[in-house]
Amino acid sequence: MPEFDLIARIRARATQRADVALGIGDDAALLRVPAGQALAVSCDTLNVGVHFPPDTAPADVGWKALAVNLSDLAAMAAQPAWCTLSLSLPSDDAAWLDAFLDGFLALAAQHDVALVGGDTTRGPLSICVTVHGLVPEAQALRRDGARVGDEIWVTGTLGDAAAGLAAAGSGNAFLRQRLNRPTPRVAAGLALRGLAHAAIDISDGLLADLGHVLQASGVGARVRREALPTSPALAACFSDAARWPLQLAGGDDYELCFTAAPAQHAAIAAALAASATDATVIGEIDDSHTLGVLDAHGRPWAPPRSGYQHFRDGSA
Amino acid sequence: MPEFDLIARIRARATQRADVALGIGDDAALLRVPAGQALAVSCDTLNVGVHFPPDTAPADVGWKALAVNLSDLAAMAAQPAWCTLSLSLPSDDAAWLDAFLDGFLALAAQHDVALVGGDTTRGPLSICVTVHGLVPEAQALRRDGARVGDEIWVTGTLGDAAAGLAAAGSGNAFLRQRLNRPTPRVAAGLALRGLAHAAIDISDGLLADLGHVLQASGVGARVRREALPTSPALAACFSDAARWPLQLAGGDDYELCFTAAPAQHAAIAAALAASATDATVIGEIDDSHTLGVLDAHGRPWAPPRSGYQHFRDGSA
Repeated sequence: MPEFDLIARIRARATQRADVALGIGDDAALLRVPAGQALAVSCDTLNVGVHFPPDTAPADVGWKALAVNLSDLAAMAAQPAWCTLSLSLPSDDAAWLDAFLDGFLALAAQHDVALVGGDTTRGPLSICVTVHGLVPEAQALRRDGARVGDEIWVTGTLGDAAAGLAAAGSGNAFLRQRLNRPTPRVAAGLALRGLAHAAIDISDGLLADLGHVLQASGVGARVRREALPTSPALAACFSDAARWPLQLAGGDDYELCFTAAPAQHAAIAAALAASATDATVIGEIDDSHTLGVLDAHGRPWAPPRSGYQHFRDGSA
Repeated sequence: MPEFDLIARIRARATQRADVALGIGDDAALLRVPAGQALAVSCDTLNVGVHFPPDTAPADVGWKALAVNLSDLAAMAAQPAWCTLSLSLPSDDAAWLDAFLDGFLALAAQHDVALVGGDTTRGPLSICVTVHGLVPEAQALRRDGARVGDEIWVTGTLGDAAAGLAAAGSGNAFLRQRLNRPTPRVAAGLALRGLAHAAIDISDGLLADLGHVLQASGVGARVRREALPTSPALAACFSDAARWPLQLAGGDDYELCFTAAPAQHAAIAAALAASATDATVIGEIDDSHTLGVLDAHGRPWAPPRSGYQHFRDGSA
């Protein structure tokens, strides 16, 4: 199957939007950015064996490839609009491509994202997605806005995806779903415009990603171990001592971590409830320039490790 | 070397533009699109062994990864503005990365393109670049605008890149340079706004790419074999019979192929001369719905093959 047939197969299923002047099938897509909106652009690649196990279902690979990118837009409080897809495939497997598109396009439809371009090439399985979103520049949630005294929030629950990859959790359907079909917190990100000071999505693990916020903002933080939001499935499959490392350092949860003034607590709780997103305060921003974890008695507790990095750990 | 050090290395060398509100280092870049401009987006991946030989110098890989994408913007008559870079590397080779960036950023500087985001991951060497350009929507050069009676033009010379890969040409410095350091015809694309009816860049071979224009426009074409623009190096290394297949079906030249009314001939020649780009008329658009090549006597001549496709031919 030549490249052009694969592209035709993708093109036939790609959704449209009124602001796409020209979609798949020319040298470039032509897109209309409304006045008053900044263009938010992010790009993430998933490689087999590094970002997902080789036996992952193709529909899950498709879902996740878009989800991790939409999660970046959510963390900027941007409204998703368009994406491109560059797909390297080891062979011309139409059934695999169709299943991949099932997952990819199901999530795209949920967020009204138009697939406007890309390419297919031969190579080891690799998926590079670039997403484009819209946000008024002054309302974007950056990493560098955290202030001393801010509460630190996270959406959803932590540690589920890492647990779904661990032996003790891999048989649990909920945990596997959290690993394979993460929910990009787009609605939460939009709800936090004008309320949060800083935000990031948790892709590499809470401590690593919160650390990026602290570094960009020039502040420190205390996180309370007992406050970490925990799913019933995680609590059922893991002891406290076994789940804490997953919650603090496990990657792939794609929840949002954000900071906001305590005075906004009630407004944030209401805004997130209106967007059907659970969220929990797990700590506070301070001026320590360090990131510490506190135990049940408020004493410093040494976290098990500092976060997932592809080049160090090798596989997820 | 962890992922974040690689990103820091890239970030330290990335160029800036005034319309980049937020560049590398957050969840997404924030970019300002001027009123009256459509956003042109294109995305192309280069995989080792498919799009470039494994022994290609890293600086050439960097140059080419951006050049093939800028070529797509040129074919839309878009002014390049921003790009993202997603890099899969088999190991943490800082020297390779630095050399890669030498080539990538040299070309980015020539076209005032800001590198605004991306990621690095472990995997077989693969480079995915997404480029963003700006063009008033009505001035974009699409594939579907060719009209019966149009002249068919190409910029530069054809066949050089394919010749640089062939045994008879691989020792020629000019031909190797054409293969490894293609010149995206950005200035020519901009000069053709309001003059050309349709355009495409020649990445897969003249016949294959012109075929896309014909299909999108619902027309046919005759191309004159003797009119194909030929570099002195190509003529020196190859007989006519050996070079014609390279010029008609060889990929990777990244010249522009465009069509325009004969009445615009002098204006186009002047506009391209002002942008320091050679261009040649090689044929005409007709209503045949077929693509034919004519020999020196104006008789139909069977071209050797129909163009390069990654999934069929396997390697470039």
